[in-house]
Amino acid sequence: MSKLTDLPKRILIGRALRSDRLGETLLPKRLALPVFASDSLSSVAYAPGEVLLVLSIAGGAAYHYSPWIVVAVAVVMFTVVASYRQNVHAYPSGGGDYEVATTNLGPRAGLTVASALMVDYVLTVAVSIASGIENLGSAVPFFVTHKVLGAVAVILLLMVMNLRGVRESGTIFAIPTYAFVFGVFCMIAWGILRIATGHDMAAPTAHLTIHAESSGLGGFALVFLLLRAFSSGCAALTGVEAISNGVPAFRKPKSKNAATTLALIGLLAVTMLLGIIALAVNTKVRMAENPATDLLDHGKPVGAGFTQNPVIAQVAEAVFGHNSIPFIFLATATALVLFLAANTAYNGFPVLGSILAQDRYLPRQLHTRGDRLAFSNGIVLLAGFAAILVVIYGADSTRLIQLYIVGVFVSFTLSQTGMVRHWNRHLRTETDPAKRRHMIRSRAINAFGGFLTGLVLVIVLLTKFTHGAWVAVLGMVIFYATMTAIRRHYTRVSEEIAAADEPGEDYVLPSRVHSIVLVSKLHKPTLRALSYAKLMRSDSLEALSINVDPQDTRTLQNEWQNRGIDVPLKILDSPYREITRPVIDYVKGLRRDSPRDVVSIYIPEYVVGHWYEHLLHNQSALRLKGRLLFTPGVMVTSVPWQLESSEAAKLRARRRADWSAPGSIRRGPVGPPRTADREQVTPGAGAGSGQV
Amino acid sequence: MSKLTDLPKRILIGRALRSDRLGETLLPKRLALPVFASDSLSSVAYAPGEVLLVLSIAGGAAYHYSPWIVVAVAVVMFTVVASYRQNVHAYPSGGGDYEVATTNLGPRAGLTVASALMVDYVLTVAVSIASGIENLGSAVPFFVTHKVLGAVAVILLLMVMNLRGVRESGTIFAIPTYAFVFGVFCMIAWGILRIATGHDMAAPTAHLTIHAESSGLGGFALVFLLLRAFSSGCAALTGVEAISNGVPAFRKPKSKNAATTLALIGLLAVTMLLGIIALAVNTKVRMAENPATDLLDHGKPVGAGFTQNPVIAQVAEAVFGHNSIPFIFLATATALVLFLAANTAYNGFPVLGSILAQDRYLPRQLHTRGDRLAFSNGIVLLAGFAAILVVIYGADSTRLIQLYIVGVFVSFTLSQTGMVRHWNRHLRTETDPAKRRHMIRSRAINAFGGFLTGLVLVIVLLTKFTHGAWVAVLGMVIFYATMTAIRRHYTRVSEEIAAADEPGEDYVLPSRVHSIVLVSKLHKPTLRALSYAKLMRSDSLEALSINVDPQDTRTLQNEWQNRGIDVPLKILDSPYREITRPVIDYVKGLRRDSPRDVVSIYIPEYVVGHWYEHLLHNQSALRLKGRLLFTPGVMVTSVPWQLESSEAAKLRARRRADWSAPGSIRRGPVGPPRTADREQVTPGAGAGSGQV
Repeated sequence: MSKLTDLPKRILIGRALRSDRLGETLLPKRLALPVFASDSLSSVAYAPGEVLLVLSIAGGAAYHYSPWIVVAVAVVMFTVVASYRQNVHAYPSGGGDYEVATTNLGPRAGLTVASALMVDYVLTVAVSIASGIENLGSAVPFFVTHKVLGAVAVILLLMVMNLRGVRESGTIFAIPTYAFVFGVFCMIAWGILRIATGHDMAAPTAHLTIHAESSGLGGFALVFLLLRAFSSGCAALTGVEAISNGVPAFRKPKSKNAATTLALIGLLAVTMLLGIIALAVNTKVRMAENPATDLLDHGKPVGAGFTQNPVIAQVAEAVFGHNSIPFIFLATATALVLFLAANTAYNGFPVLGSILAQDRYLPRQLHTRGDRLAFSNGIVLLAGFAAILVVIYGADSTRLIQLYIVGVFVSFTLSQTGMVRHWNRHLRTETDPAKRRHMIRSRAINAFGGFLTGLVLVIVLLTKFTHGAWVAVLGMVIFYATMTAIRRHYTRVSEEIAAADEPGEDYVLPSRVHSIVLVSKLHKPTLRALSYAKLMRSDSLEALSINVDPQDTRTLQNEWQNRGIDVPLKILDSPYREITRPVIDYVKGLRRDSPRDVVSIYIPEYVVGHWYEHLLHNQSALRLKGRLLFTPGVMVTSVPWQLESSEAAKLRARRRADWSAPGSIRRGPVGPPRTADREQVTPGAGAGSGQV
Repeated sequence: MSKLTDLPKRILIGRALRSDRLGETLLPKRLALPVFASDSLSSVAYAPGEVLLVLSIAGGAAYHYSPWIVVAVAVVMFTVVASYRQNVHAYPSGGGDYEVATTNLGPRAGLTVASALMVDYVLTVAVSIASGIENLGSAVPFFVTHKVLGAVAVILLLMVMNLRGVRESGTIFAIPTYAFVFGVFCMIAWGILRIATGHDMAAPTAHLTIHAESSGLGGFALVFLLLRAFSSGCAALTGVEAISNGVPAFRKPKSKNAATTLALIGLLAVTMLLGIIALAVNTKVRMAENPATDLLDHGKPVGAGFTQNPVIAQVAEAVFGHNSIPFIFLATATALVLFLAANTAYNGFPVLGSILAQDRYLPRQLHTRGDRLAFSNGIVLLAGFAAILVVIYGADSTRLIQLYIVGVFVSFTLSQTGMVRHWNRHLRTETDPAKRRHMIRSRAINAFGGFLTGLVLVIVLLTKFTHGAWVAVLGMVIFYATMTAIRRHYTRVSEEIAAADEPGEDYVLPSRVHSIVLVSKLHKPTLRALSYAKLMRSDSLEALSINVDPQDTRTLQNEWQNRGIDVPLKILDSPYREITRPVIDYVKGLRRDSPRDVVSIYIPEYVVGHWYEHLLHNQSALRLKGRLLFTPGVMVTSVPWQLESSEAAKLRARRRADWSAPGSIRRGPVGPPRTADREQVTPGAGAGSGQV
């Protein structure tokens, strides 16, 4: 494509190709599943371990609660899946949690969800990559000793990949995701077969005993511990909501296909979760929050040198054998699917930013879809936040998960509550009894979903607030406050610049234009600026030069005369060799003398090709311009002169324009802007749209 | 001054005050001495120590050579002073080494000197501050344990002070410099008195013996060692050349006063140097390159805990007693005068940059005198380089001095050689026998100066290259290469844009203007842009809006009609919600249809007051503008709308304009630009001057 230098052809074919490509990428279910499943399925890699970790506080005996906790998690999972199937049907245009909450519960609820989601994206990156590195570490010990380094490297790698704009395809998602699912199912099947045939399998930690931090817990304390374990297990639910944004990416019937895919994802996740926890209990996996002191080998702590591998790796080792080929395969697939899950956040964060920008909660330029710069900022910001978290928490997925689940459940709860309102509103006008029945059923599902996720949210906050959830809450508050401030700024500005209702009321119309061409030497850029300015037929025209060096000024005056230029040349003295101040003062003087006139200033500018050339040119012009713009009644015209080197930059700009934003495969083709079901949002929300 | 909000008054009185102030600051000799002496006198604080350090390699017995080495240094000092007295007379306009070398030896020699001086400025900061911290450390042990921290803090402090633009006065220089000179002379006098009265004084290291790294040196090795010690002692000569830039700052007769001051400085420096080394030998100061291992206390190394204080501090301790008031006074004055010496580099570096920019070796915007930004960049760069050196070399003045002297002697040698040429040239035309005699005498002095400093340069390179001087040479090469590349770029561009000799030859004159106002919404900024564009009476005028959101576009069209705006509104569709591409394509289409037309594009822009508001506005406008400028035949006009918040920025800009550049007291009042004696420089050298 970039070979076609003929511009019109390039545009035509370029466009045609792009539209085709987008048509092609509408996802069949077999590709949609991996595209949307990596995030939610990958949590299977760390959720079981978190459950065991918390239970270990009450000693190894508490492990027999773990299947029941996973069953509770499965119940929540099915509820959430059932609820989001309603979202998908109600918002086929791809209304995410932010939109559902904004539309049905008002902008504050929407903004809360948005803040929660942003925190969540950051944590998805941090947790997934930390966990991915831990899984790699079970096969490659290098990553155990260089955890933080590895995690930060992957964060940066994903950042660079996304900044460069990798052209995505469903296949890239499909291979690791299906490999992971296949691997886990093989492991479960092979494990069950070996148990059934009487083999005795032992996890690498099976010989250890757990030093219970508080043994013999009973009553309230035990319930609290079980609830904490349950909270940790709920990490498995992250990523389920992603599909509700992605309905437009599905083949028709979009909503139905999306709902089916969602059900499949839920089923897969629960099966894998149950299988892994069952095998973990059977193979006697032992995990502790502080393995160095709380895991005992023949009564003695294992010490700081001990590496606690993830549950999935330990189970795989027990089933397949240490460093066997299937073990390595599964560890690699797990790490890949976790990195893929992190990558989805790199896609989602800028998209959410663009939607928020449309509603003026973020700088409006983030709104323009497919705008590389908008995405770049979001991607770098996300990577930065995630890297900070990873470094602070030593790339320890267990500690990071403490922060994780709050955001997810905030958006679950508000989204489901919003859905109840949605159905209530539609029920007020709907008369078809069949449709009404359907709506009432949906409302019941969403109401239960909202209730259950709200309950989980409370449990998570109660059991985890002091363990780290406060960091997530603080992050949400900061995002919320920032976005509110930005929105307030835009509103204030838009009131300030609103045109008066009666035309002509705004201000006295200017009467004449006085044009000034700034001249330093008589070269081609200056001559071009002069000839353009003359074409504009303003009321008066003069050239202006600052006398910084008398020698140069004399040369200029002579040349001016020799060439017979018919524009008067005015020379301003500058005793301090400044350029900006004399021009500003002169312009202000003109404005004082005739306040109704407009001053139009022409500045010849060089267009260069490299950033370092910018340092060598136009600096005074830019500064002068910046200052001139503060003076009312002035307009500043750049008359560009394209230096030869500018060709390089032109090519770069073209390449940038052909860039395709990451994550486009998840969002589907560009449709008309979201308007469905937004009647409650202020109509001016799209103000940023065409703003230049 | 800043209280006068009435603009014309402020300008008038502001200007008047400034001219007065500059008149007042013409320096009488009693103030000129400290202003220019801090750099050269402060080296007295470290030069003697360096001599002893090197001699210690041959054991304590070699110390008896030290007075002879200082005498050799004194000879060089007097030679250099005598030589520069000729410079001062020949270049009363303040021609520094760079100018002398450029004018007389050509641009390459000039550029070599410039590179050497730049390296030298960086090292002046690093060495002076490191040594200042060491002197402070002799009184306040905190600075011994936190050397690097202290040095970097002082570097940053000076940077901030210079960035903010401290208003200088001769007094600020006078107090510490005279205090230092007074303190040293008191010490020498008191010391001699005590010796004369038979007191036995012992330095704190007098009881130590030196473990000679290579004892019993003889023949060539000894000569080499003595030459190395001499090279180190020559550090005392740095800063002498500074006065040759500063002649315009003196009261009349400028050259004579400058020459007298220079002689005084030389005399003071040599006296202090000799006095200190004599007292050091008498009080048995012991110093070693590696004190921890090479200084022995009763045969045993003193170990890493030992702090080797500077010679001047040890002598002061011997003469005045440890922690006595005169001792503390001298330590403080020494540190202050060293920091002052560093500060002169903060002044000199940007000034040199401005001269180099005038000759197009550096970005031309650095040339504008009194331009805050130009100074800021130079100051930050200097501080950055110095901080890096200080951190790398652990703020160890001894190790830094190894790098120091190369640059100084490169510029000494080239400057003196240039002076010989200068006299040769003048002798060719001069006929007055008295003047000729004078010139021949001056030439002899400069020739001897050039020869001697050249010899020292060779000695320094031979004895110190592997000890660190290679770093300085590398730095010079890098500066040289960068500046050559910048000069080449400017030359290429100026050839590219040079107007053809015959008027009208350059290109076909454009015939008509097609004006386009970019519109997103109908608010005041848009209305202003429309009314301005209408005033310009171009051949055709239309408004252009990008259809990003159909709803918004419809609103815009309705409002357009309701207000009865008499400019046609064109809507461009943008399927990808981009703004830049449709506009660019449209403009290119217009240009294709009528290539001789010029397209004039009006963009309404917001003017805001805070940097973060920039992030919220104008981003699309700026990007669009950047892209439009690549299209030939286009001019882009910003029609500003000043938001209320822009008032804050306007005030800030005014305050910035009132800022006075640091170092102005050393440069004297603004005169006409340097032209004297520049006949050999290419006449276009001042090209950057009025460039905007």
